[in-house]
Amino acid sequence: MRISPRHPRAASLRTRARLAREMRKGVVAPEGLIAHGRGEAFDYLLGERSSAGARKAERAAAAWLLAARRPVVSVNGNVAALAARPLARLVRALPGLRVEVNLFHRTPARAARVASRLRAGGIRTVFGVHPTVRIPKLPSDRALVDREGIAQADVCLIPLEDGDRTEALRALGIRVISIDLNPLSRTSERSDLPIIDELTRALDHITRAIPLQKAQARPGFFRPFDRSRALADAFATIERRLTRETRARAPRPSRHR
Amino acid sequence: MRISPRHPRAASLRTRARLAREMRKGVVAPEGLIAHGRGEAFDYLLGERSSAGARKAERAAAAWLLAARRPVVSVNGNVAALAARPLARLVRALPGLRVEVNLFHRTPARAARVASRLRAGGIRTVFGVHPTVRIPKLPSDRALVDREGIAQADVCLIPLEDGDRTEALRALGIRVISIDLNPLSRTSERSDLPIIDELTRALDHITRAIPLQKAQARPGFFRPFDRSRALADAFATIERRLTRETRARAPRPSRHR
Repeated sequence: MRISPRHPRAASLRTRARLAREMRKGVVAPEGLIAHGRGEAFDYLLGERSSAGARKAERAAAAWLLAARRPVVSVNGNVAALAARPLARLVRALPGLRVEVNLFHRTPARAARVASRLRAGGIRTVFGVHPTVRIPKLPSDRALVDREGIAQADVCLIPLEDGDRTEALRALGIRVISIDLNPLSRTSERSDLPIIDELTRALDHITRAIPLQKAQARPGFFRPFDRSRALADAFATIERRLTRETRARAPRPSRHR
Repeated sequence: MRISPRHPRAASLRTRARLAREMRKGVVAPEGLIAHGRGEAFDYLLGERSSAGARKAERAAAAWLLAARRPVVSVNGNVAALAARPLARLVRALPGLRVEVNLFHRTPARAARVASRLRAGGIRTVFGVHPTVRIPKLPSDRALVDREGIAQADVCLIPLEDGDRTEALRALGIRVISIDLNPLSRTSERSDLPIIDELTRALDHITRAIPLQKAQARPGFFRPFDRSRALADAFATIERRLTRETRARAPRPSRHR
């Protein structure tokens, strides 16, 4: 299906078509498409750009990743489909960052396809294709992690995650940085450093912040982050948008008589 | 995949699993899953129940459908997958209402599958499986309509629609009643009677309002509806929710030191 470049939502339609294609190839799960739709709605409400609060969280995330001894980024089908290249750029900026495949709807074949999508984007080493460790108290396949990856991590960047897992990782003493457009999600609620922003924008901003934060970084020293403030900022951004929309709407009666 | 009934989002997970299943069967399009996700996000913000404003719109919709000479409801894959039975109940309450399949991503096989899903839900006559008329100025397959259905309609109920088509139907002089959880969508913007509510709740409320509105109904007389007010009400509901969430969040520092 051809998407007209003049369509008011062309970029959004192209991303949707890409996800549908990656689902047919078995990289993205059907539930991943639904999750993408939820993200779209929140991004729309946030004005489809990174708020000042999100930019601040992205700078703090760069500092935390630099301060980490074993930083790991957890990748699912949607992340591989939409952001393999932005993620490869982040790994080039921060070579110690390990990339691990972690899937809610896991099959060995799907894990291999997600890994191969990441390699095609420029990521050389991918962990988690043959996970050997289980995180306690997590019933889903998300509990399966790599001995060399999440199992040893002190900081875990989890884009587009689920709340149960965020909690399970925190219970292991791992600092969680989340990227999720929904400020009300359990992931955003429970993360140590919730970034309320679109995935590729967030990854690009973290990558650009790495060289700027490098001078101050000390291993094991994590700058405090006000998570409640970050969430409140996101709510305020949406509220302002809705207030503007309400005001813009002078009463317009139906055209019909 | 088994869904625990104790999961805080069990109902929502079951609906997602159902849509994924119906997609594998070819009833729902991949893009339909993304659209469902958008709806989920807005429903979450609206508190997952019908607001007073939505209830009012649903009563007005019942009145309009009763006043219509040729009411038609336009059905896509998601509607067939999620609401064939609530729709069948509406048709039983209002036997003049014609049900027409109308698909953005149309193939003859998919149209037939959507129709058969509707019949399985209890709808006897389904229009639009072999459409013969084109609506002007609409490039997509949504332009294909049934000579006996939308082509002759004076009122069209369009759940989960797209903005382009809402506009094209209005240009034909058809009154459009929309059901869409997104109060900012072009569908909601352009509809004559936007219902900002979840599909099955909205259909159930319209059905229950039919007997109550019947006494006052006069063919061709349509009670005025304040569409701007309906949209402003939905924005206000979301704003109240966000304000509540912001207030509920006393500053909580990270658990880590």
